[in-house]
Amino acid sequence: MVKKVAVVGATGYTGVELIRLILQHPELELSCVTSRAEAGRTVQALFPALRKLAKTTATKLENLCFVAPDPTVFEEAELVFFATPHAAAMHEIPSLLRQGKIVIDLSADFRLQDVSEWETWYGVKHACPEIIPEAVYGLPEVNRAAIRTANLIANPGCYPTAVQLGLLPLLKEGIVDPTDLVADCKSGVSGAGRGAKVATLHCETSENFKAYGVAGHRHWPEIQQGLNALISASSPASSPRVSLTFVPHLVPMKRGIEATLYANLMDDVLSHYSHSQLQELYHAYYVNEPFVDLLPEGDLPETASVTGANSCRLSVFRPMGRSKIVVSSVIDNLVKGAAGQAIQNMNIRMGWEECLGLSQMVVWP
Amino acid sequence: MVKKVAVVGATGYTGVELIRLILQHPELELSCVTSRAEAGRTVQALFPALRKLAKTTATKLENLCFVAPDPTVFEEAELVFFATPHAAAMHEIPSLLRQGKIVIDLSADFRLQDVSEWETWYGVKHACPEIIPEAVYGLPEVNRAAIRTANLIANPGCYPTAVQLGLLPLLKEGIVDPTDLVADCKSGVSGAGRGAKVATLHCETSENFKAYGVAGHRHWPEIQQGLNALISASSPASSPRVSLTFVPHLVPMKRGIEATLYANLMDDVLSHYSHSQLQELYHAYYVNEPFVDLLPEGDLPETASVTGANSCRLSVFRPMGRSKIVVSSVIDNLVKGAAGQAIQNMNIRMGWEECLGLSQMVVWP
Amino acid sequence: MVKKVAVVGATGYTGVELIRLILQHPELELSCVTSRAEAGRTVQALFPALRKLAKTTATKLENLCFVAPDPTVFEEAELVFFATPHAAAMHEIPSLLRQGKIVIDLSADFRLQDVSEWETWYGVKHACPEIIPEAVYGLPEVNRAAIRTANLIANPGCYPTAVQLGLLPLLKEGIVDPTDLVADCKSGVSGAGRGAKVATLHCETSENFKAYGVAGHRHWPEIQQGLNALISASSPASSPRVSLTFVPHLVPMKRGIEATLYANLMDDVLSHYSHSQLQELYHAYYVNEPFVDLLPEGDLPETASVTGANSCRLSVFRPMGRSKIVVSSVIDNLVKGAAGQAIQNMNIRMGWEECLGLSQMVVWP
Amino acid sequence: MVKKVAVVGATGYTGVELIRLILQHPELELSCVTSRAEAGRTVQALFPALRKLAKTTATKLENLCFVAPDPTVFEEAELVFFATPHAAAMHEIPSLLRQGKIVIDLSADFRLQDVSEWETWYGVKHACPEIIPEAVYGLPEVNRAAIRTANLIANPGCYPTAVQLGLLPLLKEGIVDPTDLVADCKSGVSGAGRGAKVATLHCETSENFKAYGVAGHRHWPEIQQGLNALISASSPASSPRVSLTFVPHLVPMKRGIEATLYANLMDDVLSHYSHSQLQELYHAYYVNEPFVDLLPEGDLPETASVTGANSCRLSVFRPMGRSKIVVSSVIDNLVKGAAGQAIQNMNIRMGWEECLGLSQMVVWP
Repeated sequence: MVKKVAVVGATGYTGVELIRLILQHPELELSCVTSRAEAGRTVQALFPALRKLAKTTATKLENLCFVAPDPTVFEEAELVFFATPHAAAMHEIPSLLRQGKIVIDLSADFRLQDVSEWETWYGVKHACPEIIPEAVYGLPEVNRAAIRTANLIANPGCYPTAVQLGLLPLLKEGIVDPTDLVADCKSGVSGAGRGAKVATLHCETSENFKAYGVAGHRHWPEIQQGLNALISASSPASSPRVSLTFVPHLVPMKRGIEATLYANLMDDVLSHYSHSQLQELYHAYYVNEPFVDLLPEGDLPETASVTGANSCRLSVFRPMGRSKIVVSSVIDNLVKGAAGQAIQNMNIRMGWEECLGLSQMVVWP
Repeated sequence: MVKKVAVVGATGYTGVELIRLILQHPELELSCVTSRAEAGRTVQALFPALRKLAKTTATKLENLCFVAPDPTVFEEAELVFFATPHAAAMHEIPSLLRQGKIVIDLSADFRLQDVSEWETWYGVKHACPEIIPEAVYGLPEVNRAAIRTANLIANPGCYPTAVQLGLLPLLKEGIVDPTDLVADCKSGVSGAGRGAKVATLHCETSENFKAYGVAGHRHWPEIQQGLNALISASSPASSPRVSLTFVPHLVPMKRGIEATLYANLMDDVLSHYSHSQLQELYHAYYVNEPFVDLLPEGDLPETASVTGANSCRLSVFRPMGRSKIVVSSVIDNLVKGAAGQAIQNMNIRMGWEECLGLSQMVVWP
Repeated sequence: MVKKVAVVGATGYTGVELIRLILQHPELELSCVTSRAEAGRTVQALFPALRKLAKTTATKLENLCFVAPDPTVFEEAELVFFATPHAAAMHEIPSLLRQGKIVIDLSADFRLQDVSEWETWYGVKHACPEIIPEAVYGLPEVNRAAIRTANLIANPGCYPTAVQLGLLPLLKEGIVDPTDLVADCKSGVSGAGRGAKVATLHCETSENFKAYGVAGHRHWPEIQQGLNALISASSPASSPRVSLTFVPHLVPMKRGIEATLYANLMDDVLSHYSHSQLQELYHAYYVNEPFVDLLPEGDLPETASVTGANSCRLSVFRPMGRSKIVVSSVIDNLVKGAAGQAIQNMNIRMGWEECLGLSQMVVWP
Repeated sequence: MVKKVAVVGATGYTGVELIRLILQHPELELSCVTSRAEAGRTVQALFPALRKLAKTTATKLENLCFVAPDPTVFEEAELVFFATPHAAAMHEIPSLLRQGKIVIDLSADFRLQDVSEWETWYGVKHACPEIIPEAVYGLPEVNRAAIRTANLIANPGCYPTAVQLGLLPLLKEGIVDPTDLVADCKSGVSGAGRGAKVATLHCETSENFKAYGVAGHRHWPEIQQGLNALISASSPASSPRVSLTFVPHLVPMKRGIEATLYANLMDDVLSHYSHSQLQELYHAYYVNEPFVDLLPEGDLPETASVTGANSCRLSVFRPMGRSKIVVSSVIDNLVKGAAGQAIQNMNIRMGWEECLGLSQMVVWP
């Protein structure tokens, strides 16, 4: 029997992507989508792209309306997804957990284990710091075992997903200097959300490219935390901590993240990691991962090749045989960087096949 | 048991779209893709977007290579799709028909029943004019019955699909003047194909918009032929012939066609067709069509809402109650305007459910 | 000695375009730019594109700040440009006219001579209907003489400029049926302004195309008024009035309008206007116009060729020799469709060379 | 009296940009534009964007035709610009120099002083290695004095311009480790030229982002050479050589380069270079440069703000006070990265005001 699920804050780009993925998932019925602003309106009226073609197993999409996020609306749902701005989910989640529901939070509220760091970066007091330790960081390639039993899954940010998957083999293997990492990241405009802002108007972003947030970005502590975890799992406690320089950029396109990652091979392994040996290392780490795809040696990934797909495509290089390793990692920020990863986490948590509902093919070009 | 199919000329945008749709069709195995230029290369190497995520029922995609279009390569296939430039398929199709294969030709070779008109517009002699009468024009909303038994299906052009579906109810009902129709059409750049041409380079098309082919375009006789057929089915032989003015435009986007259609209501029905009555008329014609979607009265369709989908979305208006009717019709030129319609035709021909393999949801935005 | 000018409402796309053109005009000093929201901020801080390269004759751009639109701020200016939303300028203009200033209003407040029609379309009561008769509609190719002495110039809308210039020779010559005109128009997103709206976010407009305002658009009565004036100047009072069907569309680009115009040649002139004769007719009308550029016979204009330029490029066709004439007319909506035309009007009014400050070359691609 | 100039290879994007800048330069007459493929065609027919608006001092643009690059066609010209693909100019330049002409080569033929390195990267034998020492590398901010007397100016590449200007103050001041520099660069599609290639078709690049040339790119040795020169001018001969990792990326836009540059502050100066002190350092280096624009502290440059302008806009950061310095540098690849810099070099060489003909304002948005 299908599971009923709810989506909170379903009018943004992450929300509508979650709806799309839920509707085509064979084990789910979408029983509730909330939005204060659009309450009473049908989902299809707001998102005509969902009209008619939606052949879903269980959801009656034609009649599905947004409802105000009154606590009673979640009663039927066994799982609740939050696609809200930061600092909203934390007010609702404790009560839902007490009711025995499984919660997957796509916002940032439970991503940082250090509550004071969270409060510094997000500028508000955390509503339920006592719940934070229960939250499992939902990066399946790192935390699959813990996700299987988690009732609160903190779904990773988009940049953090691309960066962590790109650097994971290097850091786990302990072959690069963790104190000098660079992540030069580029994102499509949907990463900035569906809020009405001058900065993301077509005329401001089209035929334009720029760096932003160089002085500091909220995804930086999340990535640092994740990379430090990769090291400590494989190293003595005394090992050096990660020092990452992270610069995001805005690309004139709707979807997609590319992260170009730079790390220095340790002196003592310089002769052990040729380009081909790095390729083998990455292959070994990811050959069994359903959603990480290492390209053939020498190829480079492009964001359009993962549009709409829950996939991270990767390449690793060692230009001119010097000590600097370069990794290029691409994802769709709304899928592997948000809604798709949430579905993947749910599949793991529910004991379903991890790819269930996630095998739609990429529309290219 | 799955049917084996072949795609001829599979390196263009229509070809790769056909491959995508075939791979996710539950009844098909893609046994052969031909390309002289790419022979020996794997399909995944040319189109990385197809990597890993392809969960197909039967095709072993990882090993699938392009092969040269030697006649023997089609032996296994029961159906052959042609995604070649014009004037190529006509040389191969007679032999395939003799072998008992079903052929769906996405090129223009069998779209015009008048061979001299075809030769005028395409500038070459037709290779097999004797076969033309066998070809069924594959617009299911008009010719579904004939498609069921056709061995050679001439898949319609992209503009013709959008225009004919937009005008069909008006012409079949006989309520507009067929001698003064205007089709102002706009297409994304993929309509121009994947050939290396300066005119479709990013720098030539981006941030640019223009009309082209005003003096004459090859889709014009195809549309005229189709619209005339709509009239003659419902009118006496003495009724006037269609006179259509067709102006295509190039839009700085990859996919999508929008056709804005203008027609004058006949004087004697001016008082019978208010906006709401036109809405009802279109509803009556299309309510049972799986791939034509009439929007709620007053809404207008946008191309992004059908990207990747085998869908034509329509609106009909009568601005300020005057005699001019305006219809807006959108399709994805590569799907309902090409590869998706080909699959729909195949489903009809094979007696399968018409939507089979065509229910992937639209990725939006 | 340079003239001091003010711009009211200078934070939108039309406003910044006016600033650009004023700064490089040899006879002007920009003495005042108003904005309630940005008061106190330098113009360069809001628009970094204006930094450093601005070599202006008189304006000290580095120190130029937005000021609140307090009446005293205009004291120095001899000319005042309004780049405000509709229904704002009409409250300020009467007082400025009494002070002897010349006013060029880029908003819609004085474009319609019929005040009740204006009030119907704009949904508010007009603040100074008694001033409307003084306003001269600033389309130089039609009203040059009147503009020379006007103190209030109503600068035309963007669509109306492209449509009127495209149809002018046909209507003045009286060779097409004015009761069945179609204007299928397409605009870049800047036409929708710089307000923060979801509908013009990059993710909503990019890779998308749609019609809008089919049921009615505020530029329709303006165009009708303008086209009727073209007829009545050349025809008996009893001649038929214009009936225009106008459908605007949104193009995924920043700037540019293309209008495809359809008209039927009168029966009695069918044999007198071949394609070449139409070309000659347009040539005769526009050969001396500095900002209308008829392309060589057979060529079609593209919007990118006029980006940033005060130019309307035109082509005229008679497809397959039938009675339907097709005109394609392109402008930059922010220049010939707004700020550039305002400068052209000012040049005419001040008795300066009409091209002064308007000869910057197009940056292509 | 105006100088006559010729442009060789004027049908590419760099060529047409040169034509635009030459036409509006008050001291120049464009006497000759060559193209084998377009010989006999007018420049305006190929580039309609240049029609009618071109108010040039001396050139009769309406009659200007491409001519085949026969040696006699250059006779009148005092200066010759080469906008040819690599390995073409080197065959023509020796003869032109012997005739006493000044040559500005926008191709790569004379950029590398080490001929064997040039031959390695460009894969052909150099036609005139003996001339290479005469060539002056035309980066005015570094080589202004030498440019004043050079008869052969090797105009820098686009990436090299953005990277060198971004790192110059740090390397000249000797405060960063030159052995670990990273340049993560992003370019619009025009950087790939106007050749008809599948890889730069609209459908391949739009809504897409990717790294390329990670294993090696021809601009890398040029940048290394330039950065090494910056060091050696200020350091003992024994100082370490530059080691740069350079990764270019393709952005879905027409024009613009952004370079994000990473360097480690030397340990001994960590306490002397706060963010504000770095800002002061950059200010001191560039305050008198007409075409380098340091943004106010904390702002970040965007490519759209320099479109069409001969400007490099820069910001420098020291994120979270750690040792890593981050610089963002933007240019228009066709202007400061090619044709505009060529005009700037010419102005310097001819003893004219350096900004002559280069003060056209940016069209934004």
